[in-house]
Order: sequence, then structure tokens, then C-alpha cells
Amino acid sequence: LGSRSRTAGAELLGELSGIRRQVQLESRLRKFIRDGTLASETPLPSSRALASTLRVSRGLVVEAYTQLRAEGYIVTRHGAGTYVGVMRGGSPVAAPTSRPKTRLRFDFFPGRPDLASFPRELWLRALRNVLRGSAASALSYPDPRGTPELRGALAQYLNRARGLAVDPELIVIVAGATQGLALFGRALVRSGFGDIAVENPGLPSHRSVLAAVGLGVRGVTVDSDGLDVGELAGIGAVLCTPAHQWPTGVALSPARRAALIAWATGERLIVEDDYDAEFRYDRAPLAALQGLAPDHVVYVGSVSKTLAPGLRLGWLVLPPRWAAVATPELLNDFGSSTLGQLALAQLIETSAYDRHLRKARERNRSRHDALISAVAEHLPGARVSGISAGLHTLVRLPFACDPDSLTAAAASREVGVYPLSSFLIERPNATDALVLGYASLPESAIVEGIKRIGEALAAL
Amino acid sequence: LGSRSRTAGAELLGELSGIRRQVQLESRLRKFIRDGTLASETPLPSSRALASTLRVSRGLVVEAYTQLRAEGYIVTRHGAGTYVGVMRGGSPVAAPTSRPKTRLRFDFFPGRPDLASFPRELWLRALRNVLRGSAASALSYPDPRGTPELRGALAQYLNRARGLAVDPELIVIVAGATQGLALFGRALVRSGFGDIAVENPGLPSHRSVLAAVGLGVRGVTVDSDGLDVGELAGIGAVLCTPAHQWPTGVALSPARRAALIAWATGERLIVEDDYDAEFRYDRAPLAALQGLAPDHVVYVGSVSKTLAPGLRLGWLVLPPRWAAVATPELLNDFGSSTLGQLALAQLIETSAYDRHLRKARERNRSRHDALISAVAEHLPGARVSGISAGLHTLVRLPFACDPDSLTAAAASREVGVYPLSSFLIERPNATDALVLGYASLPESAIVEGIKRIGEALAAL
Repeated sequence: LGSRSRTAGAELLGELSGIRRQVQLESRLRKFIRDGTLASETPLPSSRALASTLRVSRGLVVEAYTQLRAEGYIVTRHGAGTYVGVMRGGSPVAAPTSRPKTRLRFDFFPGRPDLASFPRELWLRALRNVLRGSAASALSYPDPRGTPELRGALAQYLNRARGLAVDPELIVIVAGATQGLALFGRALVRSGFGDIAVENPGLPSHRSVLAAVGLGVRGVTVDSDGLDVGELAGIGAVLCTPAHQWPTGVALSPARRAALIAWATGERLIVEDDYDAEFRYDRAPLAALQGLAPDHVVYVGSVSKTLAPGLRLGWLVLPPRWAAVATPELLNDFGSSTLGQLALAQLIETSAYDRHLRKARERNRSRHDALISAVAEHLPGARVSGISAGLHTLVRLPFACDPDSLTAAAASREVGVYPLSSFLIERPNATDALVLGYASLPESAIVEGIKRIGEALAAL
Repeated sequence: LGSRSRTAGAELLGELSGIRRQVQLESRLRKFIRDGTLASETPLPSSRALASTLRVSRGLVVEAYTQLRAEGYIVTRHGAGTYVGVMRGGSPVAAPTSRPKTRLRFDFFPGRPDLASFPRELWLRALRNVLRGSAASALSYPDPRGTPELRGALAQYLNRARGLAVDPELIVIVAGATQGLALFGRALVRSGFGDIAVENPGLPSHRSVLAAVGLGVRGVTVDSDGLDVGELAGIGAVLCTPAHQWPTGVALSPARRAALIAWATGERLIVEDDYDAEFRYDRAPLAALQGLAPDHVVYVGSVSKTLAPGLRLGWLVLPPRWAAVATPELLNDFGSSTLGQLALAQLIETSAYDRHLRKARERNRSRHDALISAVAEHLPGARVSGISAGLHTLVRLPFACDPDSLTAAAASREVGVYPLSSFLIERPNATDALVLGYASLPESAIVEGIKRIGEALAAL
């Protein structure tokens, strides 16, 4: 096409048949221009010549040329005919490749709820009610802070279930705890905060997100009473998990809670990540710190541990003087999907969420207990540490070992294990504990998986 | 309670009755401590005394005290009894108040699709299929770039419908165009870009988001051929709306398209906001610029104009060398709700999305035509400018007037109008044009609304 003469090569375009032949001609020409078959500046046949070769009407070719000229694929020069236009691109795609994952039949990945028990029909029913019952305006650009329905329902739920002092106007719906941290982190940077303290060990993805928004991230020691408040001197903000420390599983002791509240004077802020507090098996859950210091605590929660992370629904509860954080500029957006928000509001208001939590609590408790027994039986010398709560526990091993060798030995037995060392800011060469999530594994799989961890340890 | 003696005031707590009396006692104590009725350091009655006053078992009070001590609400001092702990907070909520909106029966808000025609049953059916047919893993933490299903479906759709050269690995699902701009804007800043050019007039919220991530935002003139490419000298990136300029409604002319592609050498980038390109009424839509320069164009799209903004679903198509942008750190999150993504993928793959678009196009075209006729009939001297496309049009008024007076005069007639001046970087004192969205108004409302605009103009 245009290489030797102005009509040669037109057979490249193939036969046009059936309906929408103009569209066919346009897409083939675009394709050949894009992939370089027709290089920039190549002359194109006249509409009359091309029409005759393709056995279509001249009008069709004229229309196709007009379209492609308007789009920039071809150019017409007065008196000199039609040419291929200038292109930029065509470099081969060098896309990020996701590394292939080994299939782990017994994956003790911590922090994932039992997705097989997600209440699909309940959620579907809620979505149906929302889709059939909401005003059309519910489908419009939402309040970036979240729908009034969900913020209202959450204010009541968080007060009742987590002891929060909370006004719906101070709740911001986010796509999950991580997004919440990112946006509040940006607000901190903008207000002149330079550093934030985080528990060490803690969640590496939280550290990266906080660092990415420009905060200096400073690790604070965690012992059996929780984070060491004494190390907070000179820092303005701390991210912590008081109800059930991630990943060591300890609760912040009463003395440390008092010390942390006493620390929070002036502009100081506590970011309380209450990620799995609904699940406590030996007693009632401790109320959130937020209730003790609503002016100094930014509370972070989500449904990622109670329903499913795939819903991408979480929330921040802000101190009053930080309420202005929730601008579209800082949120970068107009918030999360309205339908999901309204469905969750409905589950909360009809108590279906409480009923779901009760069932999930029972199931998680049984799996927790199965893990404890299996460790006692199949991992001699190991001991479970931390409180009886959440979706994971810390298992102290009878000896320290190389974390990579242990992970590999477990993986070769189809078991996923997560060494404590990988949650520390400076990773040591040895680990003497594993963070094991149990909520997504049936009891039989927990027992078999722990057995295999025993074999992996023996094989080291 | 504790004010005069250690048992006085216990009647404040009221009578405990029915089930969960321990929980009742705990929440009332938390409430009184939080609202200052019981100040810090106030001594509390002994468990024995309180039990007797409240006529409950001593064990119940002991348990409640234990819980509140663990939470930090009360403290026990050896030999000195129980006291109220230290609190921080209680300042009155100073929340952002949403300004009350006048009800506008004839709201020509531009850029909103007809929400009353959102295909609720179709969307519900897709959600049902997704909820009943997906593996449990679909509910887990998603790929932050979006589900493979939606990225695959979009790659085909965008190629077919918008002429894009696109690999699914280069698509990132976002919560909407605004979030997409924010995240790509952060990537630009991180790569050393200082400024970005934007069309003037353009969308103020896009300008604020780009400024908020730290970019210098430089306005470029728009005339009847679209943005003036000549003004891009010395700038590395430009945000533009080539298919249908927002808000003037012109298309970028072939000569300007060629000039823009020619400009995009080296590291230069075009951010193409293809916000409403599915809707063209006089001819086939122009293919996106991205197809001409896939190495230099960041393509931005969403369902906000085709389905509903409340779904919060959009996408970026990245140039290959920008693929690494899509990290959780930069996305700040693990992406958008999986269920919505999978539902949209299904609509696209079953062609239900195309059928929906055809219906929407017909409806929008009729409304567009109704607006044109109504302007001709009821706004003498005014003229509609821009191409026949999209969800809004620009109406040039017969005379310039004060934008606030005009908006107020229209609002007092229950009509929402949007002066062109409010989309300019430096707002002039007078406006001679209105940006009028017609897609969400029935034809009769369009006619009545335009009539009333005529009355408002006459009343100025």
C-alpha cells in the first residue's frame, strides 16, 4: 500500500465484507499505521483508486479518510495527496510482571479473614435493596467523605461496639486502612509533621506508604506490654495497634495505655489502627483508645478483616481540629463506591453485621483453638504468645533459624509461613518466631499445616 | 458518684435491667467519664458499695471495673481505691458543614449522565453473577492495578471503541479520573516534572488536585481549534481533552492534533482526559490521541459519564516506561472494589455495555437537539458553540453579564446555570457564555429551563 505505487499493497487491507465496512477499513488502516507497516510520510492511494481496488464505493473511502484525518492518522497536503501522519510510539511493552506464585495449600498468611464464609447472599441482598430503593442521586458524585448513611451507621456502631466518642461529621470513608493512612499522612506532612513513630515489628506496607507521602518513619520497641511509650519523646505522632499489636499479638497494658494518653498533649497525635479488634476470644474486646482522647486520636478501621478486603471499605475517625483534612484535594478523589457504602450501612443498621460478626467470631475462635492445640501437639518446644484474639498469632519457635530457609522448607511442603523477622524494620538474619494467620484455614488444614511446619523445622 | 462520698451519685448510673447489665454499666461509666460528669482523678465507689447501690452482684461490678481498667478509663492505686483515669478530649465538634443546597428543578449541571437511566437491574444481575460465580480469592486483597478481568476487557473495548493501542498490563484501574490524575501527578513530581499545562478554561477540580500533589499548573489558551499547542514550549506535560474540550466543546483540529503529537518528543507527556468521547452525535467519535503516540500519552477514562459517577470506576492507560508507577506506595492503596470491577468486566464482555451506550447515545442526542431548539426559540441572540457531542454544550449569550447575578437570577427560578467564567483560571467579572449540561434532564425540563434562563437574562 503506497510502497511502490499509490495503489500497490492495497490487498494488505484484505477484503471488506458484511456491515460496517467503513469501520473495518478505518481500523485496519489505524492498525497498519500504528504497527509501522505504513510508515510516517507514506503516500496513500487516492480515494478513487482505493475504492476500486477494494470494490467499495468511493464515498466510503472518502468518509474513512475524513475520519482518519480528523484523528491525525493521515494528513492531506494541498495538491500532493494523502500521506500517513506522524506517529510517536510503538516501543514494546515492558510491563511489570507479577511473579508467579507457588500454590500453598496451607497458607498461614496473617490478616486475611475466611473468604469462603463471606456472606455473599447477604451482601447481594443488601446491594439489591440499595439498587432498587435508592434515589437516583445516590449514583451521582458522592460526598468525598462518604455517604451520610454509612457515616451515620458507623458512628452508632463504633460507639456501641468499640466505645468511640464519634460524630458522623468526623468520619471519612476510605478504600481501606492503607488509603486512610496515606491520606492522613499527607495531611500530617502538610501541617508540618516530619516524623511518625511506628511499632517495630509492624506492617511493612504501612511503613512504605507513610514514607512515600514524605514522613520520616521511626521504629519504637514493642515488648510484652505493647509499644514502649518512653521512646516517643520528641515525636509528634505515632501509629499503633493497641487492642492487639500487629504482629506480636500483645495488648497494650493498662499502664502503657495511661502513659500513651498522658503523652498525647498539645498537637500530639495517636493513629490507632483498630484492624481486628472485633475478634477477642477470652473476654470482651477492649474499647478503643479513641474514646479516651478523641481530640488526639485518629482512629482507623475497615471491613477487610470482618467481611472481605476486596470490598475496599474502611474509615477514619478524625479529631475535630483535623476535620478539614477531608477535602477532595487531599482525598484526591470523590471517595469510594456508593453502592458498597450503602450496602454496608444497611447491614449495620439491620444488625446483620453483628450477626455476621458473631458467627465469624465463633469460627475464628475454633480455628484459634485448633492452632493452639496443634502447636502443642506437633511443634514441641514452641509456644504461642500474645492474647487470644484476632486472625493470627505469634508462635515462638524452640530455636532461631534462617527465615528464608524456613520459608522455603515450608513452601516445599505447600505451607506458607511468615517469619517475625520480616516485620522488623531492620531484618535480622535469624528468626525465632512465626506470624501465623489461622482465620482462612479450616481446622483440619490448620492441624496438617502445623504438622508440616514441624517437619520443615526438623529438616533445617 | 464520688462527688461527696464514694457511693453518692451512683443513682446517676440509673437502673440496670434486662440482659447484658455489665455492658450497660460499662457504657454508662465510659459516657460519664468522657463527657466530664466524672472528671479525671474522681474516686469511684468500691465494687462492693456500687454493687449494693445498683442491686447487682459484686462480681458484675468487678468485671466491669476490670474491663474499664484494661481500657484506661479507670485506674487502681494500691491501697487507695479506684479513680477515673486521665482523659484528653471533649472539645466540641467543629465539623465541616456542607452548605445547604437550593433545590434546582432545572439543573443544567454539566458532566452528569442521566442517573435515572442507570441500568440498575443490569448492574444487579452482573453483581449477582460475580457474587455467585467468583472464586473466594476474588474477595481478597486485590492487585492494586485492578483485576485482570477488567483490565483485559477494557484493553479490547478501548481498542475497538476508542482506537487505543493498549496492553492490559499497562492499564491501572482507579476510582475515577480525579484519583487517576492525582496518582499520576504524584508520579510526575517524583520523576522531576515541575509544571503541567492545562487547558484554560478547564475543570477547576483537576487544577486543584494537580496543584495539591505539588505541580505548577499553567493555563494554555483554548480557541475554536482546541488548545493552542504553540503555548506548550518549555513545559513537559499537558492535560487535555482532545475529543471534546471541557468545557468549550470544541474538538482539537487535525492541524493541532498533528502539532501536539509532533510536540511530544523525548520525555514529554500528553495526559488525555477522554471523559465523554463515547457520545458524538454528528459522526463517528474521533479515535483517541493515545493510538497515535502510545509512548507519550497517559489516557484517562471512567464510567462516570457512561454509567454513574457513584460507581467510582475509572482507568489510566500508561506509556510502557511509566508502567512502574502502579505500585501500592504510589496508588496509596490496594485499588477499587473488586465486585464493581468484575461487574463492569462482565458488562463489557457480554456487549451489554455497548447496548447501554447505544441507548444512552440516543437519549443524549435527543436531549442535545432539544437544547439546541430551545436555545434558538427562547434565547434570542444566543448561539450554541462546539461540536455535537458529549453531555453538555456551551451557549454564547447575546451580551456579557455578571456571572453571580445571572446564577442568582436563574436559581431564583429553580434553574442551575454554570457560567463559563467559573472554569477560567483567572475569573473575569463578566461572562458571555454558559456551560449547560443536558444529559440528566428530560426534554420538557430542558425547554422549560431554557425559557427560564431567558427570563433570568431579561431580568438582569
